[in-house]
Amino acid sequence: MARGALLVLEGAEGVGKTTQLRRLASRMHAAGITHLTVREPGGTAVGDQIRNILLESSLHIAPRAEALLFMASRAQLVDEVVRPAIDRGDFVLADRFFLATYAYQMAGRGLDARGVQSSNAFATAGTVPDLTLLLDLPEGEGFERITKRGAHDRMERSGDAFHAHVTAAFRDFATSAWQAAHPECGPIALVNAIGSEDEVEGRIWSLLVSRWPETFLTVSTSHS
Amino acid sequence: MARGALLVLEGAEGVGKTTQLRRLASRMHAAGITHLTVREPGGTAVGDQIRNILLESSLHIAPRAEALLFMASRAQLVDEVVRPAIDRGDFVLADRFFLATYAYQMAGRGLDARGVQSSNAFATAGTVPDLTLLLDLPEGEGFERITKRGAHDRMERSGDAFHAHVTAAFRDFATSAWQAAHPECGPIALVNAIGSEDEVEGRIWSLLVSRWPETFLTVSTSHS
Repeated sequence: MARGALLVLEGAEGVGKTTQLRRLASRMHAAGITHLTVREPGGTAVGDQIRNILLESSLHIAPRAEALLFMASRAQLVDEVVRPAIDRGDFVLADRFFLATYAYQMAGRGLDARGVQSSNAFATAGTVPDLTLLLDLPEGEGFERITKRGAHDRMERSGDAFHAHVTAAFRDFATSAWQAAHPECGPIALVNAIGSEDEVEGRIWSLLVSRWPETFLTVSTSHS
Repeated sequence: MARGALLVLEGAEGVGKTTQLRRLASRMHAAGITHLTVREPGGTAVGDQIRNILLESSLHIAPRAEALLFMASRAQLVDEVVRPAIDRGDFVLADRFFLATYAYQMAGRGLDARGVQSSNAFATAGTVPDLTLLLDLPEGEGFERITKRGAHDRMERSGDAFHAHVTAAFRDFATSAWQAAHPECGPIALVNAIGSEDEVEGRIWSLLVSRWPETFLTVSTSHS
């Protein structure tokens, strides 16, 4: 494969993104598909320092400052990690990327859409994900899962109304009308996140087989 | 005075901004003009943490990430400090604000102008300085002053070509053609920074008297 691809896992809190990303990475490793995983905010030395500011509970961060900190971390990640990896021909698996800002900062915090979009385009230098997998759970269920985990950070303690807005926004992103109006986000596939981890993993793998058959199907055959 | 004002001191490294800001604040204090001073990046708890990232010599910060970190600090400063102070009727004296990003990130680092401008408009939520005083020295002289100080930080060690671009950009901002094309920057007055600190302070005070005679002239008279 000459050019790699940027594959993003998205969804509201508690839908199982991180678990599924780990499973996907492990399955790709076993299948010999070269890849790396990144997370937002963070994934670089600069990004990790930005992450520390964002997650510090004692700070009151203004909503626009919060959005711009996410974007600064993203700009660093794109230049330092994502673009070089794609140019080498690798898959990049991202735990959140693009839509998270749209959902949390635009829908959740109510920030000006045009301002967020243009700043984000600047941050990514026009990098469009090749595929975004949007994990979806019935309203409230994801947040219930993380509530059970305990110990919330600053983002997680932002209140029920905030998280309801975020969940509704993620649903909206899965519609073809929304995607047609937002070509900068690339194709977005909704993944049903109800059921066991194995079941969700199977759904994700099937989507990847249909999107990149030359990579994912060949590999499955060689292991059968 | 019902509404306060945002007064910005700008200029390349070593032109004497910080010294003149301190002198101006002290003179306004003596004259009983309510004001506060802020600096960029920083000026808030969030901004100070961002400042630490920006000045850390060991980090390689991507140019767009650097610009977005400045903007995040600015967004926080606008919401937490600048707008409340102006609404109270105070003068805000800013050691750098708006033009610094244009000079350092657009001209110095060569970043996309439209991306920088739209992100900056988002960061400031459309806050336009009431007056920017642009301190100007013959090319090379400001940088020579800071070289004599020793101990450069990451920004100051960016090389002669970088600083030459920055100085040229600041000159350009002082032209009426540039200002007409950039209404978001507000009025910009060039201040000759050659001569003693007293001389430069006198030039600055004269500009303020002509811009806000009801505030600065009344005060001078009352002290005579």
